[in-house]
Amino acid sequence: MKLYNYWRSSASWRVRIALAYKGIAYEYVPVNILPAVGENRADGYRAINPMTQVPTLVLDDGRQLSQSMAILEYLEELAPKPSLLPADPYLRARARQLAELVNSGIQPFQNLPTLKLFSDGGLDPKKVAADFIARGLGAMEASAQAHAGAFLVGDQPSFADVCLVPQLNAARRFELDVAQWPLLARVEEACMKLSAFQSAHADRQPDAVAAGAK
Amino acid sequence: MKLYNYWRSSASWRVRIALAYKGIAYEYVPVNILPAVGENRADGYRAINPMTQVPTLVLDDGRQLSQSMAILEYLEELAPKPSLLPADPYLRARARQLAELVNSGIQPFQNLPTLKLFSDGGLDPKKVAADFIARGLGAMEASAQAHAGAFLVGDQPSFADVCLVPQLNAARRFELDVAQWPLLARVEEACMKLSAFQSAHADRQPDAVAAGAK
Repeated sequence: MKLYNYWRSSASWRVRIALAYKGIAYEYVPVNILPAVGENRADGYRAINPMTQVPTLVLDDGRQLSQSMAILEYLEELAPKPSLLPADPYLRARARQLAELVNSGIQPFQNLPTLKLFSDGGLDPKKVAADFIARGLGAMEASAQAHAGAFLVGDQPSFADVCLVPQLNAARRFELDVAQWPLLARVEEACMKLSAFQSAHADRQPDAVAAGAK
Repeated sequence: MKLYNYWRSSASWRVRIALAYKGIAYEYVPVNILPAVGENRADGYRAINPMTQVPTLVLDDGRQLSQSMAILEYLEELAPKPSLLPADPYLRARARQLAELVNSGIQPFQNLPTLKLFSDGGLDPKKVAADFIARGLGAMEASAQAHAGAFLVGDQPSFADVCLVPQLNAARRFELDVAQWPLLARVEEACMKLSAFQSAHADRQPDAVAAGAK
């Protein structure tokens, strides 16, 4: 498999965690989505991803998948063990609920095209995005109380944790103190003890190293 | 089950389609999310949904679920027949990909709190939202070509169609001509021949009737 992605993209990062957790090897193909570079808007990439977003996963037979949540579900079906969803149907739904709180409730408001839109409209993009992030993570902290264990839902990592870790990293970039969400901060710490979460970290990707992130 | 929802909310509408398609009976509990009313921001509702969003599905045992995509997956596991996902793993992923293109790629930019933010910032909320919708539906039209049949992925309705129908309705509210996306328009027509899509339509819900939508 090939993963077209960008080191700091949180949607890319989620897929990297899942691939690593399930032990699936892949080729890393960097796509520089910074507006000044815009490799994602080139015709070649647009043909495989009309939304011009990362990540895109290209399977061994050349077929392509995008949208990080759809890719997570695909990987879960392809390689069910180790699982990133609880066994209980209700808890599976709760894990997906927390993941979607990030995926559709927070991330769309912090991505680069949205920030540009805020900025073009005369809004302070950093402040607007930070407000969305803080509101979403506050709701996540509240929602997660009911079923948290060592991780957000029980004692094994799930889609919820896969979405949490990149989101907390983004929160820090928007100068939010994640200590205000003690459960989320504690779970992040538990995640970062796992090798899959370590190897998938933004700062450890080849394009991050090239950009001088480390 | 009880579904806390709002007639015109596209996330609510998706869940209504899935419940109807699978023949699951439920009690309709209207939540008026219009900013001037804000029943979703009342303490009672916030306790069950800290994001103060609709829908929330309350199960027979009182447990709650939110986030429409998580609810769709839950219903698919609870009542697998008739299915809203293809049998083939890759096509399942494609259905979810198109659904997420709407769920995280379009809908967040047209919901009421976002429109208010655009407006407060001096942007034209209707124009900004219409731009996001047109960009997303254009990408959906392109992405769906590869696997469309009578519906967006093959010849049976899937999560993709469940998300499409409310989204096209929203596009019209933002004064977009959906005929510019001929595949999407054709699939919508096929969906609207099915009783589940008919009964779930916004205009046919009790709070819509009360509001004079019909």
